[in-house]
Amino acid sequence: MIKHILISDPTLRDGNHAVAHQLTANQIAIYATAADEAGVPIVEVGHGNGLGASSMQVGLALEDDVTMLETARKHLSKSKLGIHVIPGFATIKRDLIRALDIGVDVVRVASHCTEADITQRHLGFVRERGKEAYGVLMMSHMAPASVLVEEAQKMELYGAEGIIIMDSAGAYLPSDVEEKITALVNGLKVPVGFHAHNNLGMAVANSITAIQSGAKILDGTARGFGAGAGNTQLEVLIAVLERMGYFTGIDFYKMLDASDIAEREIMPVIPVIKSESIVSGLAGVFSGFSKHVTRISKEYQVDQRDVYRELGNRKVVGGQEDIIIEVVMDLVRKKK
Amino acid sequence: MIKHILISDPTLRDGNHAVAHQLTANQIAIYATAADEAGVPIVEVGHGNGLGASSMQVGLALEDDVTMLETARKHLSKSKLGIHVIPGFATIKRDLIRALDIGVDVVRVASHCTEADITQRHLGFVRERGKEAYGVLMMSHMAPASVLVEEAQKMELYGAEGIIIMDSAGAYLPSDVEEKITALVNGLKVPVGFHAHNNLGMAVANSITAIQSGAKILDGTARGFGAGAGNTQLEVLIAVLERMGYFTGIDFYKMLDASDIAEREIMPVIPVIKSESIVSGLAGVFSGFSKHVTRISKEYQVDQRDVYRELGNRKVVGGQEDIIIEVVMDLVRKKK
Repeated sequence: MIKHILISDPTLRDGNHAVAHQLTANQIAIYATAADEAGVPIVEVGHGNGLGASSMQVGLALEDDVTMLETARKHLSKSKLGIHVIPGFATIKRDLIRALDIGVDVVRVASHCTEADITQRHLGFVRERGKEAYGVLMMSHMAPASVLVEEAQKMELYGAEGIIIMDSAGAYLPSDVEEKITALVNGLKVPVGFHAHNNLGMAVANSITAIQSGAKILDGTARGFGAGAGNTQLEVLIAVLERMGYFTGIDFYKMLDASDIAEREIMPVIPVIKSESIVSGLAGVFSGFSKHVTRISKEYQVDQRDVYRELGNRKVVGGQEDIIIEVVMDLVRKKK
Repeated sequence: MIKHILISDPTLRDGNHAVAHQLTANQIAIYATAADEAGVPIVEVGHGNGLGASSMQVGLALEDDVTMLETARKHLSKSKLGIHVIPGFATIKRDLIRALDIGVDVVRVASHCTEADITQRHLGFVRERGKEAYGVLMMSHMAPASVLVEEAQKMELYGAEGIIIMDSAGAYLPSDVEEKITALVNGLKVPVGFHAHNNLGMAVANSITAIQSGAKILDGTARGFGAGAGNTQLEVLIAVLERMGYFTGIDFYKMLDASDIAEREIMPVIPVIKSESIVSGLAGVFSGFSKHVTRISKEYQVDQRDVYRELGNRKVVGGQEDIIIEVVMDLVRKKK
C-alpha cells in the first residue's frame, strides 16, 4: 500500500477569497517562503477564482496575476508553483502562456462538476508545454458519483494527470466522500484528490476519509484560510496524517511555523464556522454567494437562512448571483 | 434503532475555561435564556473545573457557585440545569447539598479515567436525593478500553445513570472513539456519552463516530466555546445529526440564534486551532497546562512543542503543572 500523500496548498489562492482578493505581493512572498521552507510540495497562488479572474464581476485583485506569480516564483525553490485555472476566466493566449513563461509548474484546470468539456484545450495545452496538468471538478456535491466519473474520465482523456474533486460548498459528510472517491478511484487510471471546505466541521475528517477511500492528493491551507468557513487546516491535517502512518514530505514543526506566520502576516481573522456557513453548507450553496445573501436579506428583512435553503433547492452555481434577489422577493411575497 | 440523542451543553461551564472563569451572571442569564428557548435538554453551568473549584490554584471564578447556579436556574424553564462535579473540588456538605437546593437537575460526577472510586459517595448522594446522576471519565485517552469499561462499571454500580467519556486533551481520532465507545456500550447497561475537544479538528467527526458506535449522549457548545481548541461546535453538530436522521429535540434555527448570541455576548474570541493546540492534542496533554507551558517555555527559551511532547511522554494530568518546570530545565540542559 502506497502511503505517500501529495499535498497542494492553496493558502495564497483560496485564502484570497477570505480577503476579497487583497493579498499583497509582500504577503505572498512571506508565506511562500515559509511554505517552501516547510517542504510543501505545491504552493497555489492567485486570485480566489484563479488565473485571469480579477474583474468587477467576481472581484478585483489587489495585485495582478504577473505580480503574484513572479513574487511567488522568486520565493519558491523546493516547492512547485501551482495555479487554478477556470477556462472562461483564463484564456490560453492572454493568461496561460504568460503564466507558464513566469515558471508555473502545476496547472489545475477546473470546471463545474458537469462541464469537463471546457477544460480540454487548456489541459491539452499545458501537457504540450510539458507542465503538470490536473483536472478539477468544482461543486462536486451537485452531481452523483456516476456523473463525476464520466466527467473525470473526459479530463483524463484530455491529458489530466490527476483529478481533484472540490467540496466547494462544504456540503459533504464522510459517507458522501467515501462514495464519490471510491467511484472515482475505481473509474480512473490517474490519481484522485480531494479539496474540502469546513462548513459542517468535517474538512479534516472528510480529507482523511478521502485517503482511506483511495485518494492520493489533498488540499489544505494554513489555519484553514479560505472561502467561507475555510478549507482543511493543513497543519492539523499533517499531524493527523502522520499519526495515521501517512507520509507527506512536509516538516511538521516548520509547517506549524508557516501557519503561525500566515496567521500573523496574512490573515485578518482565522476562519470559523458561523451560522450562515452551516446553513449554506447544508444547502450546498457556494460560499461566494454569502456577502450578497447577507446584504440583500437584510435590506428586505427576510431570514437569510431561508434564502440559502431556497437557493439550494434551485441548485444555483457561481455566476447565478442574480437569482438571490428573485428568491428574496418570493420570500417577501410569502411573508405578506 | 433508537435515533434520539441526548445533548448536554457546557457552554457556560467548559466555556468558562476560555475566559479564565470570568463569565458574568449577566452573560449566564443571556445564554441560558437562548439555550432554553432553543430546547437544549441540559445546560451545564459553573467554573471550568466544576462545582467548588474556584480557587487560587485552578483559577478564581468571577461569580461564586451560588450566583451562577441561581442565575441559570431563573432563566431555564424547559432545559434542565446541570453541573460538573469533581470530588476533591466539590464536597457533599459544602457544595453539593447547596447546589441541589438551588434546583440543579443533573449532576455529572467526574474523575480521572482510572479513579472512578472517588465518585462513589457523590453519585450515591445525588441518587438518594432523587436527581439525575451521571459518571464522567476525564482524560479518557490515557486508559485502554478495558480499563475504561472497568471504571465505568464501578460508576454504574455507584448509581450512575449514564457514563460519559471525555477526550479532555483532544487526542482522539475516530478509530480511537469507535474502539472505546464500542467497548463501553458492550460493557454497560446504562447509556454512554462522549465529550470532545477539537485539537485535531475532529470534534464533530468524533462525536458522530461515537453515535455510530452506540453512544446516546453528546456534549457540544455554542461556536465550540471551551478549553483550548474548543469543544464540539453544537450548532454544527445539530445540523449534521439532523441530516443523518438523528433527533435531538433542539430547534436548529433557534440554536443558530443562540450561538450567534453567545458569539456576540459572551465570547471574546471564537476558539480556533492554534499550533500549540495541535501539539498538545498529539501529546495528549490537558489544555489547562497551556498558559503555563507558554510562559515557562518563553522564559527559558525552549520550544514549547518539545515541552508538550515530553509532558505527553510523562503522562501528566491536571494538578501536575509543577512538572512543566522540570521538563523545561531538562530541555535547557540538553541544549547546552
